[in-house]
Amino acid sequence: MKIALAQQNYIIGNFEHNFNKIAEAISKSKQHGADLVVFPELSVCGYPPRDFLEFSDFIAKSQDVLKRIAELTKDGAIAAIVGAPSENPVAEGKDLFNSAFFIENGKIAHRADKALLPTYDIFDEYRYFEPATSFQTFNFKGVKIALTVCEDIWNIGNENPLYTICPMDELIKQSPELMINISASPFDFKHSRDRIDIVRKNVERYKIPMVYVNSVGAQTEVIFDGGSIAMNQEAIVHTELPYFEDALEIVEYNDLLNSTTKQNKEQNKEKFSLINDALVLGIRDYFAKLGFKKAILGLSGGIDSAMTLALAAEALGPENVLSVLMPSQYSSDHSVNDSVKMVENLKSPHKIIAIEKPNSAFLDLLNPHFEGRDFDVTEENLQARIRGVILMALSNKFGHIVLNTSNKSEAAVGYGTLYGDMCGGLSVIGDVYKTEVYDLARYVNRNQEIIPVNIIEKAPSAELRPDQFDSDSLPPYDQLDVILYEYIENRQSPKQIIQKGYDEKLVARILRLVNINEYKRYQTSPMLRISSKAFGMGRRMPIVGKYLS
Amino acid sequence: MKIALAQQNYIIGNFEHNFNKIAEAISKSKQHGADLVVFPELSVCGYPPRDFLEFSDFIAKSQDVLKRIAELTKDGAIAAIVGAPSENPVAEGKDLFNSAFFIENGKIAHRADKALLPTYDIFDEYRYFEPATSFQTFNFKGVKIALTVCEDIWNIGNENPLYTICPMDELIKQSPELMINISASPFDFKHSRDRIDIVRKNVERYKIPMVYVNSVGAQTEVIFDGGSIAMNQEAIVHTELPYFEDALEIVEYNDLLNSTTKQNKEQNKEKFSLINDALVLGIRDYFAKLGFKKAILGLSGGIDSAMTLALAAEALGPENVLSVLMPSQYSSDHSVNDSVKMVENLKSPHKIIAIEKPNSAFLDLLNPHFEGRDFDVTEENLQARIRGVILMALSNKFGHIVLNTSNKSEAAVGYGTLYGDMCGGLSVIGDVYKTEVYDLARYVNRNQEIIPVNIIEKAPSAELRPDQFDSDSLPPYDQLDVILYEYIENRQSPKQIIQKGYDEKLVARILRLVNINEYKRYQTSPMLRISSKAFGMGRRMPIVGKYLS
Repeated sequence: MKIALAQQNYIIGNFEHNFNKIAEAISKSKQHGADLVVFPELSVCGYPPRDFLEFSDFIAKSQDVLKRIAELTKDGAIAAIVGAPSENPVAEGKDLFNSAFFIENGKIAHRADKALLPTYDIFDEYRYFEPATSFQTFNFKGVKIALTVCEDIWNIGNENPLYTICPMDELIKQSPELMINISASPFDFKHSRDRIDIVRKNVERYKIPMVYVNSVGAQTEVIFDGGSIAMNQEAIVHTELPYFEDALEIVEYNDLLNSTTKQNKEQNKEKFSLINDALVLGIRDYFAKLGFKKAILGLSGGIDSAMTLALAAEALGPENVLSVLMPSQYSSDHSVNDSVKMVENLKSPHKIIAIEKPNSAFLDLLNPHFEGRDFDVTEENLQARIRGVILMALSNKFGHIVLNTSNKSEAAVGYGTLYGDMCGGLSVIGDVYKTEVYDLARYVNRNQEIIPVNIIEKAPSAELRPDQFDSDSLPPYDQLDVILYEYIENRQSPKQIIQKGYDEKLVARILRLVNINEYKRYQTSPMLRISSKAFGMGRRMPIVGKYLS
Repeated sequence: MKIALAQQNYIIGNFEHNFNKIAEAISKSKQHGADLVVFPELSVCGYPPRDFLEFSDFIAKSQDVLKRIAELTKDGAIAAIVGAPSENPVAEGKDLFNSAFFIENGKIAHRADKALLPTYDIFDEYRYFEPATSFQTFNFKGVKIALTVCEDIWNIGNENPLYTICPMDELIKQSPELMINISASPFDFKHSRDRIDIVRKNVERYKIPMVYVNSVGAQTEVIFDGGSIAMNQEAIVHTELPYFEDALEIVEYNDLLNSTTKQNKEQNKEKFSLINDALVLGIRDYFAKLGFKKAILGLSGGIDSAMTLALAAEALGPENVLSVLMPSQYSSDHSVNDSVKMVENLKSPHKIIAIEKPNSAFLDLLNPHFEGRDFDVTEENLQARIRGVILMALSNKFGHIVLNTSNKSEAAVGYGTLYGDMCGGLSVIGDVYKTEVYDLARYVNRNQEIIPVNIIEKAPSAELRPDQFDSDSLPPYDQLDVILYEYIENRQSPKQIIQKGYDEKLVARILRLVNINEYKRYQTSPMLRISSKAFGMGRRMPIVGKYLS
């Protein structure tokens, strides 16, 4: 039996687009002699559909696509496994299941509903779905198959404390000979390794091979990296599909039973290579799925905007990214020079628009109302907001999307101006800590200088008042980032962080900054997610909360 | 047995504040001879604590407060029921329960865990909590009591299709003589009626009285209205606590058994009276809980900013709300005159700051880059953004919070400028449809003219180009709002809406506008929630989704 793994990038709610992609893969798989083609979780409607699932029309459209897919299997030449929401016939409980459909000879021959519904971090599945409580294998071409959906294989041996059941422990009682799992398992820079591990643990426990098909593509902030796997029953990776792109590969089931694979065929999982590729895909899909081609950003001469430009140039083509240099009286010469050098390195367009005149116009207008108060953060924010207005005006006139250039450290402590440098339709590096931005810059420059070395080496400055440096108002980034990481990613309390050797006052100051700036992050654009805990939908905090603040 | 209903307003995560409030109510109740005092759901930490629940330190602090409350009951003079998260001792499943604690003689004498965990709309309880599966009554002063938490009483007779169990159906088997429910049940303008109905259905079904204690106060966008209830066993409201304020009232259990209450004592539930009071509380608590006193807003001469000013003046005092009139060359005389008349009506401060000069400065700067293109939405947005910059500058200099003045109809179809009129820390009427804003204005003017009649009567205009009216780009608001309501509140499909008699093209156009403007709403401030489906945390849509767009 030949099985095709169809790793695809869908558009949520664009049923025509998704159906066409699925139909094309069915047709190709058939041409290559596949008996079965497997698609990812909720392939029919795209994942995550979120509250679109509350529209009965959306569910009806998903069902229609299922019927059209069934038509394609009518000749009996190929069967398919796809994911779609299905209606729960029982009145009590949630209205839907998150289901995998096995479609054969023009009919739905088997349905497996998801039992483990992730409801943490970015996931909200219990909001929509009822968990499955019964489990059934099915037969195809003489092979008994255990079909599961994503999270269902992540409670191996009840090791995952979130769940009380393990679907494969139930299914194994029926002696299946092959596991198939359809997933929409999002990227973070540690997760591709976890994913191989969990597939391996399943294979080692149940002693049968697994075909694991994952989604690929970015859906707003959440990036799916693909990396679908066929693992043989000796727990060796027989095939791993590429990361960050559509792919279709065919494996022979018998090859998964024999020791034909002598080596693990796994790909490079180097952190900054993965982050780079994830962010590039994140930008590309955000633009493509919204129907935009061109980006605009403010290029300040600092490392964050330089990094954003480098990634956008890779994603959209350097000719499609317009950099706007907006110097003020506080800008140093190197800010403009370094920025010009960078756009020349990339052969990317730029404009220089000095903000002096609107800045003076505002100050003339506002000074009589400022009641003689000193220059303070108001005048700093004003400059940042004028830059925001310029970027938004050009974006409105020519149809660019503005890229937000804030990093995770700044977003965490609120070191940024709302509607100023925090403006933009998409935050590219909002989930990358400042110290990681430097490492990523070295990765970007691995073959040639794209980001001028001076941008990487100079001390960070917002240049909103004379001789200003980030270190005037923030602790050094290497200290800041480790404390942020303990609080945000590891959810450690002040006491626990202090016990690790950090200064008590510093810890209290940083955690307070994180918490009192919730209101700013609430109004930030979506941030491409590359870590296990990104700001946005995966971290939900009350703005008026007064814990540690 | 005398029971005190303590309806209180907490600050999430401010354990000292919450403990002090609880301690004060215990002390007062004791003075008034109460045997038991009942507090709302999660009273110890405030509701909703959201992801603070993921910090073990937050849970430990809640436990500490519980111990301190227990100390207060040591003399045996009074017992208390409070809400707090509690640890699930079983490794499998979620780490926490959402619990009600009965505390007597210095000890936790009984714990009831919540079984029905709302995970829809604004609620995320399954993200944090494990549902209870066993149910136990307890005795106090010779009365057997069935204690439940909020949602637990909302699946009466299994009528609520979301849940498969009914906790009171289990508890009634143990023959309790009194139901006590502790809640954090948020306001919407229909919900206070639903709440009385559900309490009545429980009393009618189980034929014993109920004491129902609800939270009060706004937590960012979610408003809790109180209205706690003691209902006698004939399903007559014996006592209903006031809406929108802290209250402490004592009822005698025996009075709930006899027909001493001849009439339903229920309060005014008129829609616009409720909405007015809810929004006033929403503003007041947002400011108080963040430690701010003063608001600033742009007063345009239109009804939305006038309404926002009226509500803010009631919430904060007219002297604490600064209106900024920012006319342009496109502003009509009546815009300034009507606005001045309104601030005079209110005796509220104002400034007039014309935007001409920064507008010219920007146009001089940008025109060479606009490549000869015509005046379009760019130049309109520019004016709105200049106003945003002015408001934010004054806010930064003097420590105001900017109030966002957009209404729900505008927010729905994206009729507003990001970082312009969409700026602000809190959206006051973002959940009020334009047609409802008019009704609310009439309510505000019920005793005297606060909002000048001309503001209510003139045709809505953004005044961003000559002779512009909203009706140039939008359908009439009465048509728009009903179609929005069908789509947003009722989640009807285009087909279903058209079947109700609306024009097919109009429906498609409006639904498309709603969906393609998800990116704008993503960056809007929190919107005070007064309907059953508000934008924000209760409506979660993928920005890149292409359903109906």
